[in-house]
Amino acid sequence: MESGPPGGSGPAEPGPRLRGLRGADATASASSWSRFGAEAGCRAPAVAAVLPAGGSGERMGVPTPKQFCPILERPLISYTLQALERVSWIRDIVVAVTGENMETMKGIIQRYRHKRISLVEAGVTRHRSIFNGLKALAEDQPNCRLSKPEVVIIHDAVRPFVEEDVLLRVVTAAQEHGASGAIRPLVSTVISPSADSCLDHSLERAKHRASEMPQAFLFDVIYEAYQQCSDYDLEFGTECLHLALKYSHIKAKLVEGSPDLWKVTYKRDLYAAESIIKERISQQVCVVMDTKENEEHVGRCLEEMLKTELNVMTSDFEETQRLLNMLEESNLSILYPVVVISVHFLDYESVPFGQKMEKVMQIREFAKEVKKRNILLSGLLIYFPQEEQKLQESLRQGATIIAALIKDRNSGLIGQLLVA
Amino acid sequence: MESGPPGGSGPAEPGPRLRGLRGADATASASSWSRFGAEAGCRAPAVAAVLPAGGSGERMGVPTPKQFCPILERPLISYTLQALERVSWIRDIVVAVTGENMETMKGIIQRYRHKRISLVEAGVTRHRSIFNGLKALAEDQPNCRLSKPEVVIIHDAVRPFVEEDVLLRVVTAAQEHGASGAIRPLVSTVISPSADSCLDHSLERAKHRASEMPQAFLFDVIYEAYQQCSDYDLEFGTECLHLALKYSHIKAKLVEGSPDLWKVTYKRDLYAAESIIKERISQQVCVVMDTKENEEHVGRCLEEMLKTELNVMTSDFEETQRLLNMLEESNLSILYPVVVISVHFLDYESVPFGQKMEKVMQIREFAKEVKKRNILLSGLLIYFPQEEQKLQESLRQGATIIAALIKDRNSGLIGQLLVA
Repeated sequence: MESGPPGGSGPAEPGPRLRGLRGADATASASSWSRFGAEAGCRAPAVAAVLPAGGSGERMGVPTPKQFCPILERPLISYTLQALERVSWIRDIVVAVTGENMETMKGIIQRYRHKRISLVEAGVTRHRSIFNGLKALAEDQPNCRLSKPEVVIIHDAVRPFVEEDVLLRVVTAAQEHGASGAIRPLVSTVISPSADSCLDHSLERAKHRASEMPQAFLFDVIYEAYQQCSDYDLEFGTECLHLALKYSHIKAKLVEGSPDLWKVTYKRDLYAAESIIKERISQQVCVVMDTKENEEHVGRCLEEMLKTELNVMTSDFEETQRLLNMLEESNLSILYPVVVISVHFLDYESVPFGQKMEKVMQIREFAKEVKKRNILLSGLLIYFPQEEQKLQESLRQGATIIAALIKDRNSGLIGQLLVA
Repeated sequence: MESGPPGGSGPAEPGPRLRGLRGADATASASSWSRFGAEAGCRAPAVAAVLPAGGSGERMGVPTPKQFCPILERPLISYTLQALERVSWIRDIVVAVTGENMETMKGIIQRYRHKRISLVEAGVTRHRSIFNGLKALAEDQPNCRLSKPEVVIIHDAVRPFVEEDVLLRVVTAAQEHGASGAIRPLVSTVISPSADSCLDHSLERAKHRASEMPQAFLFDVIYEAYQQCSDYDLEFGTECLHLALKYSHIKAKLVEGSPDLWKVTYKRDLYAAESIIKERISQQVCVVMDTKENEEHVGRCLEEMLKTELNVMTSDFEETQRLLNMLEESNLSILYPVVVISVHFLDYESVPFGQKMEKVMQIREFAKEVKKRNILLSGLLIYFPQEEQKLQESLRQGATIIAALIKDRNSGLIGQLLVA
């Protein structure tokens, strides 16, 4: 994995060399509309997305509505918006939020620099929120900067791991069939209880599916369905595909989704989402080497050992400062806490231990400063013996420490100087 | 939360005082059969449990069957066995494992000291594995140390968070109705696809439930159902309640379960389970104080700040060693990695920094040694200025570091000396 620094691929400059530093999103656009559309023989339609985000999150057992619960200090909904935004062919994203969360939502859009978002007021139920989103997209709305799309995607604010691939598949299926939705196999058998809470019958698991998100519709199909549907539907209904069937007589095409489409519902799902995000962002590798020759070999060994981890190496604060400036330009640390580890090599024979330690302890103040920019800085001192075997052992321990810091991304440990 | 060391509540001995150290299971038996049974007007029946654990875990996308996937280095199934074992009125636990995993399972039982477990060979499907477990419990088996229970619980090896309360409720409901099972509300709408993968109809979410585990049956009811059921049922069926209805004409009583009953199915569920376990074991507090008077006040302040965290304090290795011996006697570290933090106070004015550091660095070797006993030892040096305000600041940072070490339990950071 070799690439230049973000925003440029010119010749290597003196100073830190950034190799492999990429935004965590860089892999997201593996498939594009043009490629997929051409294969499927479709032209690219005008596409918008509606995201109902008016829920109260009562199942989570926490006071904050789940779409606003923080994951690595960033609200869940921001990850979902990021997932939709990076799909270039989605023209507009309409988010329905309650009046009381409108300012919070505006703050999130500004802070995380989301684009192409329009906000509408949520209704008291999910269906009413979606309907409000559709109304904002319909052409008959006065003073509206939005225009009517050919296809509308409906997604949940609490399904942050949606991939472009499944979005493409539901949109093209909706173009052909009028409606489409992602499905997953059932994890548990579904049963029907009698009035006295006894088993009436159980459903054959293989003949049923869980209806997930995203779904997509020809705009006119779903908008007409919402315009016709009853108050009972709007209050108690849960399924847009059902409305398309009942009122527009469209049998939705069902598309197999990946396990990633799951909905963050319970507190355990927040834990799972955090771990998944940490794992994903830890697969980006970046190594910065300085030019001291005798240490370069050691740095390469360490890099070998880390392989899939994000590792930033440098050996004095000036270099670290340059790296931090690069990170800032890349916007990476706006979206994710970035781990930076300042690695120092210690030769016991040439420098007294205590003296070296005191010098390097300056890292604590520096770490407090860069934490404000969402950068988690720690120091690592690697004992550098002359014997090759002992050196390998030191490096292995160094790699373990680096992997631990990257995996947990715990801001409680910034500014520490760890020793391998 | 005050209690003596595990296994005794005698007067405080000299040396480290253990306060609040409890096994993570101590709270589990809040309800007991005698209390609950008396309320429900039932006598205590003979109860056994059957745990099918023959699955291959193909949905997890990992080569290890999910019941053997490690969480904090211990296999998932061991947590589930622990949850059943701590319920004193479950007499026998029969686990069905495949021949190829039989030795692995025996090793798990021995290493984690599980009791009351019998192993039987799993069948090729879930229903066949359960049937094998029931056969082992039936009286007509020769040379079998097990005896037929009145009620049998069927649970999944991959639902580790089952509580005694729900086990009691399904067992008493089974005594009364013949069969009973835990249910949960549906998270997604369930749909029925047509042959061409289009929507045929969607089910009203409010009228259906997910059938979860545990379930309980009068032994004769479920055993007779399995004896009568067809090969088709045994191959393709997924629901024991359905067999009881179809062959024994028993309508199972449905019992609302908690969200904790969820089944570890995907990789994200392993992440969630690990976070839940870490959170639970981090709510146990233990403080060991030594007797140096001038530091006692500081220790109390730190304890205040930590409140719900497990914190072990001591200030030289002799005390730490005594604490480690106590931990070993309590068996706690067999089941969970225990975090021990050796806290030292540093008065810059009286001891030169470098000198103190070098002494304390001995912790690295010691940490490597105790890691073998599943104890994660780190050192924490808290700067101890005379000014009260600066002292509070140091302590707050110390508390943050301790909380970080406890939360993540990352063995990559053992033996480090952190500085607050």
